[in-house]
Amino acid sequence: MDFVKMHGLGNDFVVISGPSDATPEQIASWCDRRRGIGADGVLEVTPIDSRRVRMRYWNADGGLAEMCGNGLRCVARFAADRGLVDGDSFVVDTSVGPRPVHLNADGSVRVLLGTPTLGDGLSLDGIELHTVDMGNPHAIHWIPDTVTAAVDTFGPRVETDDAFPNGTNVEFARVSGPDEIDLRVWERGVGETLACGTGAAATAYLAHQQGLVGANVTMHLLGGVLRVDLDDEGAWIEGPAETVFSGSL
Amino acid sequence: MDFVKMHGLGNDFVVISGPSDATPEQIASWCDRRRGIGADGVLEVTPIDSRRVRMRYWNADGGLAEMCGNGLRCVARFAADRGLVDGDSFVVDTSVGPRPVHLNADGSVRVLLGTPTLGDGLSLDGIELHTVDMGNPHAIHWIPDTVTAAVDTFGPRVETDDAFPNGTNVEFARVSGPDEIDLRVWERGVGETLACGTGAAATAYLAHQQGLVGANVTMHLLGGVLRVDLDDEGAWIEGPAETVFSGSL
Repeated sequence: MDFVKMHGLGNDFVVISGPSDATPEQIASWCDRRRGIGADGVLEVTPIDSRRVRMRYWNADGGLAEMCGNGLRCVARFAADRGLVDGDSFVVDTSVGPRPVHLNADGSVRVLLGTPTLGDGLSLDGIELHTVDMGNPHAIHWIPDTVTAAVDTFGPRVETDDAFPNGTNVEFARVSGPDEIDLRVWERGVGETLACGTGAAATAYLAHQQGLVGANVTMHLLGGVLRVDLDDEGAWIEGPAETVFSGSL
Repeated sequence: MDFVKMHGLGNDFVVISGPSDATPEQIASWCDRRRGIGADGVLEVTPIDSRRVRMRYWNADGGLAEMCGNGLRCVARFAADRGLVDGDSFVVDTSVGPRPVHLNADGSVRVLLGTPTLGDGLSLDGIELHTVDMGNPHAIHWIPDTVTAAVDTFGPRVETDDAFPNGTNVEFARVSGPDEIDLRVWERGVGETLACGTGAAATAYLAHQQGLVGANVTMHLLGGVLRVDLDDEGAWIEGPAETVFSGSL
């Protein structure tokens, strides 16, 4: 099996050409960081026509997942590099619908994640959490300091609370400048990650709704910088998508 | 750059053909598990003649290291698979001297690590530690139960004690049956690892010297089973060396 190893802000993927008949067991074995290739998940890219590809995404445990913002950027880069599509703007079909993508001249990739929806929010252990649906669930906690944030303890506490029967991603965020936000993310089923595209978009959207930032926000994540732009189409994220190596099993 | 990804009992390596002019910075970037290839270290294999290759080994931080038992088995497998040597028995030159290696018909690899030397031992926090030099230093602690062993706390405590100015590997071991030993290893500068070939050999040697086991010992490590045989030439280890994939950067 031929594959390419890619990452976006340290969120790393095995990328394969589709259609494939990969099984959950195979996905999990490829993602094993010592006895396999090693990755956060597997992306499958299937050509449709010169303006469109289809993606599927599996988490490292072999479970099929709806959407992955950093993965979507890598899919766009892979499709263009392989010549599966013409031009720098095309569409990626995902399990949550078609998503327009653009390859920028500087190598960064801009993708539409979708339309965020503000939830009711709640209070947990006396701490106020704001909820945003970005295709997947997010609970956002404004804090004064991201460095000392209790990500490892309050993250799993929120993720597994009865208020979230399907679990939730948990964001620890701070407005750090004009249209700038520092963010750490506890990802549902994973733990703290270097970067979460949907978490960045959800947090920027919340901050914009609350009048804390404008519509174009620079997000500072552990893995690097991601830009979020909010417009009538929804939340766009823009950032790197890098190919590390190609391999064959 | 072309490479092969291999592992022995979950101890994983990027293996390259030499001679190379790899820098410490390149080694560290290749070993990065998210933005690079991902490995515990890099092995370089350089052909000398039809009966001999030379190996160099760097840790994941880019530092050149003397010896790696699991790595030596992978080097032997790589040299044979690439046709760098003739036959199933040959010699690998290492920075601590030439080491005979044998490829078994069942796919396992048998290598001579060298001659162990028993040290003086010492008592630390009231706990008796036995010291064995296996090219690198080992402090072995006999315990009643490897599952609940305080590897994460007592391991770094011993590693960094003044009694070991260059640090030490720390073994938590238990004789679990006739000529069988359960073993967990805290590796110097790394933390707990799935398998440590020199640690297994050092522990088997100590146990044999103390009359606890015979000269042919089955070692049960977190990463799997390793056989240690003690004879006049020194300590041999025998176990798997598996190729996972080939790649190019």
